[in-house]
Amino acid sequence: MCRWLAYSGSPVNLEELLYNQQNSLVVQSRHSRLGAETTNGDGFGVGWYGDGPTPGIFRSTEPAWNNRNLHELCAHAHSRRVFAHVRASTGTAVQETNCHPFRHGRWLWMHNGSITGFHEMKRDLALAVRPDLYPDIEGSTDSEHFFFLALTQGLEDDPPTALAEAVGIVERVARTHGVEFPMQMTVATTDGETTWAFRYSSEGRSRSLFHSADVSTLREQYPDNPQLHQLSDDARLVVSEPLGDLRGAWREVPDASSVVVRGGHIELSPFAPKDPPQ
Amino acid sequence: MCRWLAYSGSPVNLEELLYNQQNSLVVQSRHSRLGAETTNGDGFGVGWYGDGPTPGIFRSTEPAWNNRNLHELCAHAHSRRVFAHVRASTGTAVQETNCHPFRHGRWLWMHNGSITGFHEMKRDLALAVRPDLYPDIEGSTDSEHFFFLALTQGLEDDPPTALAEAVGIVERVARTHGVEFPMQMTVATTDGETTWAFRYSSEGRSRSLFHSADVSTLREQYPDNPQLHQLSDDARLVVSEPLGDLRGAWREVPDASSVVVRGGHIELSPFAPKDPPQ
Amino acid sequence: MCRWLAYSGSPVNLEELLYNQQNSLVVQSRHSRLGAETTNGDGFGVGWYGDGPTPGIFRSTEPAWNNRNLHELCAHAHSRRVFAHVRASTGTAVQETNCHPFRHGRWLWMHNGSITGFHEMKRDLALAVRPDLYPDIEGSTDSEHFFFLALTQGLEDDPPTALAEAVGIVERVARTHGVEFPMQMTVATTDGETTWAFRYSSEGRSRSLFHSADVSTLREQYPDNPQLHQLSDDARLVVSEPLGDLRGAWREVPDASSVVVRGGHIELSPFAPKDPPQ
Amino acid sequence: MCRWLAYSGSPVNLEELLYNQQNSLVVQSRHSRLGAETTNGDGFGVGWYGDGPTPGIFRSTEPAWNNRNLHELCAHAHSRRVFAHVRASTGTAVQETNCHPFRHGRWLWMHNGSITGFHEMKRDLALAVRPDLYPDIEGSTDSEHFFFLALTQGLEDDPPTALAEAVGIVERVARTHGVEFPMQMTVATTDGETTWAFRYSSEGRSRSLFHSADVSTLREQYPDNPQLHQLSDDARLVVSEPLGDLRGAWREVPDASSVVVRGGHIELSPFAPKDPPQ
Repeated sequence: MCRWLAYSGSPVNLEELLYNQQNSLVVQSRHSRLGAETTNGDGFGVGWYGDGPTPGIFRSTEPAWNNRNLHELCAHAHSRRVFAHVRASTGTAVQETNCHPFRHGRWLWMHNGSITGFHEMKRDLALAVRPDLYPDIEGSTDSEHFFFLALTQGLEDDPPTALAEAVGIVERVARTHGVEFPMQMTVATTDGETTWAFRYSSEGRSRSLFHSADVSTLREQYPDNPQLHQLSDDARLVVSEPLGDLRGAWREVPDASSVVVRGGHIELSPFAPKDPPQ
Repeated sequence: MCRWLAYSGSPVNLEELLYNQQNSLVVQSRHSRLGAETTNGDGFGVGWYGDGPTPGIFRSTEPAWNNRNLHELCAHAHSRRVFAHVRASTGTAVQETNCHPFRHGRWLWMHNGSITGFHEMKRDLALAVRPDLYPDIEGSTDSEHFFFLALTQGLEDDPPTALAEAVGIVERVARTHGVEFPMQMTVATTDGETTWAFRYSSEGRSRSLFHSADVSTLREQYPDNPQLHQLSDDARLVVSEPLGDLRGAWREVPDASSVVVRGGHIELSPFAPKDPPQ
Repeated sequence: MCRWLAYSGSPVNLEELLYNQQNSLVVQSRHSRLGAETTNGDGFGVGWYGDGPTPGIFRSTEPAWNNRNLHELCAHAHSRRVFAHVRASTGTAVQETNCHPFRHGRWLWMHNGSITGFHEMKRDLALAVRPDLYPDIEGSTDSEHFFFLALTQGLEDDPPTALAEAVGIVERVARTHGVEFPMQMTVATTDGETTWAFRYSSEGRSRSLFHSADVSTLREQYPDNPQLHQLSDDARLVVSEPLGDLRGAWREVPDASSVVVRGGHIELSPFAPKDPPQ
Repeated sequence: MCRWLAYSGSPVNLEELLYNQQNSLVVQSRHSRLGAETTNGDGFGVGWYGDGPTPGIFRSTEPAWNNRNLHELCAHAHSRRVFAHVRASTGTAVQETNCHPFRHGRWLWMHNGSITGFHEMKRDLALAVRPDLYPDIEGSTDSEHFFFLALTQGLEDDPPTALAEAVGIVERVARTHGVEFPMQMTVATTDGETTWAFRYSSEGRSRSLFHSADVSTLREQYPDNPQLHQLSDDARLVVSEPLGDLRGAWREVPDASSVVVRGGHIELSPFAPKDPPQ
């Protein structure tokens, strides 16, 4: 299990975003409050969008909390869109290619949760990946295979449908392996313009997910909070767990839901798996 | 702060020693029960004695819990004397030369605790190290400097006196820097034949330390425990915290004490710092 | 491209084997004489047999030449059978799961060379792996997929046939992808009792391979060479390139050949790929 | 020995600077043409100036040539002033705190060469460092100690004099240890506005050093070279060895010289050590 954060808005300094919060993601790497594991020390990753055609990704197998290069990078980088993730391995190797976010072209993907029975189902899931995409799977995690299933089902064209069908494939394959509740997930993906996040588990008991409240409303409520004044009106965060205790700042995303962040607009919808046409 | 273990006895498999215990040192790297920090994920080290003139040391900056090379090494190595340590950095860099145990010739050294005000006192402590030993300090920790102070004071000839004087130097230097309670320590050292361990803090509130009880007595008490039957009569452990819940298996070493392990004999003595002749 | 060494004989100290030679494998990691690349700095691995049911493997992404843990491990370990490998990546990620030797049960496998067009052929090769073995592929290299093809074709029962068929599969798949000369290889594998090594390339221009000469003959020839006197009569090495300049000590294995080492017996045979029954 | 590069001018993309050159620094990490070692694979470092009060530094113990994080960082970062270094250890540990560039406040420092007899002279050199600076020495290299000697002698106020005196101290200490020719160096340092570089060896046989020629002159000479058109008129490089074969693009800095780069102005002066007042 893992912890993650997705930011969009005016360009933000990554140190401000990932370190200078009461319960920042770097704090969560050592002491998560709501995670399945308190320690998320099996590597980390940051993806950030700049001028180039694809986002940058910096990933390491070391714990985030004492990694100097991460701190240096964050202190000197600004970005209008950041994905960040701290990992607690559920068994697969601790290596950079297993760290999130994963990247495909302009797309990033990160996942908290796991696919129960993944080892047994791995070949069937890999076979369901589009043949021309298959060779680009670099690591060995359930999370990356899930990403490639979503790409196969058209993530780049219609993310909600692609996600629903990717989960549908996982659940269908699981049934043939006798796994009752395979999927446990909160997942976030972006093309650099819009963020989609999903909360779902086959069992109906998914991991926590929150989005931030409207910044202008919060500023009225807390006129003296300096962090709120640095944020643009359209700044939004989607997170595994709140970054602080500011009352009213965080809204829980319900189980079996998706949340779409376009500029400052947040749209919640129900989410359900869908069996793709075979 | 850190967690450590010192074993002596008949040759033991390192996997048995470091992994196959209810509250093994590898478990403690992620979830310590009694440590100042629950997570000891800033590297680890193992020192073990074999046929060679000096013990081997294997150290890494990665957390112990998911390190495959540590598990491989342990699965295939046996030793009659093992020092093992999992680290929680108190600020110095996460690098192999800062991981315990430290080695000098046949001697190993490992430390849980810290020297308060070390950064300010570092030069004065380094100057107190014997000039011919100074260039062998490789890392930047308080713990390694403390080792070299003990070597300077004659660790190889009379460990208890060398320790008392090394702590005396630290406390004397601390006074000139206005630091009231500089030393917090449990420390273990060995020449490959005898283990000396010390529990002390300037403030009188030192970290926990335990030694194992007599194996033959435990075997009578627990005739059905298979692990006890693999151990030789003279097998002894000194540890930061018990490796399991077996009642009667662990005896706490009192504050301000030293414990000497020679074969199966355990000797407790009071420990107090001593101002060395200037 | 890479460099490797396979030792069998009386228990040898790994430092003696991997460091204390004029052109040792650790020297070759920085300055190979005969390799396709002079630098083999993209990680290394050592596999060694001891008492346990499976061999140990120690692998790292760092260059071998300055890796302290490798030197420590080697200084303190002895083994009657050692596989060691230094890697020059041909494009796949530098990560431990891509370092050789690979292990399956009691078997080890290491490879110098590459499969041309691997990225495009990866899915087809993966599909040719036995479904129950597929999930155990951990890395992303051509070398590991080749190992799993050989396992699929019965490596554990009949290594020469399994190798011939595995190469046959690679060449058959290559034809469907328009790759003329896919296979470039010297490869070694062992079950802990016998070593099989193979030299072959589709193009007929394979990388160098040597085996050591009879130890007792060499001792007669060089009565004053101390290293020869430490070796048992049945000690044998198979290597990518000679470890020194001792005249008569090394015999080249011809292209399109296999060499089998059983105790002190060395048997050379022709090697040719074989199309397996579909 | 090592290889390094110092850039100043209009903001440049780091990938363009460190990768996209015929004989780029990343190429030199594996195949240096003029270095004492062809392989500079014992870590690397990049320092770059942005908006913040201090430059960022990204350092790693892995070889530069296959490090994905370095490539990602470079692809997404721009800077008007960059120091970059690839390391070949002369014996000290391969760890991040031994990688160049070193940083102190706004200053960066990197060094190619070594101090002969450093191990023996280490304590005397450390004692010559200003006591309040001493605790900030984090690693164990001759290069970092040299930096701290220069800081002690007033690097931040008068770099040429500080360098001359720092070398004077090294040579004075060397005489007391019977080392005839201790210093071998090309070194670069900057405060973010000006770059100073020095080429000197006690023996009079120092490592190569070059600076780039005037950009506008080169553009007239090579009107069709696209790289030259991306550079601003005041862009200047100081390098261990030329990044390409463009005739006229590189001027060697003579032995026993310093070069100061202020905007597009380059000033060469003789350099000689100076015994500081004791």
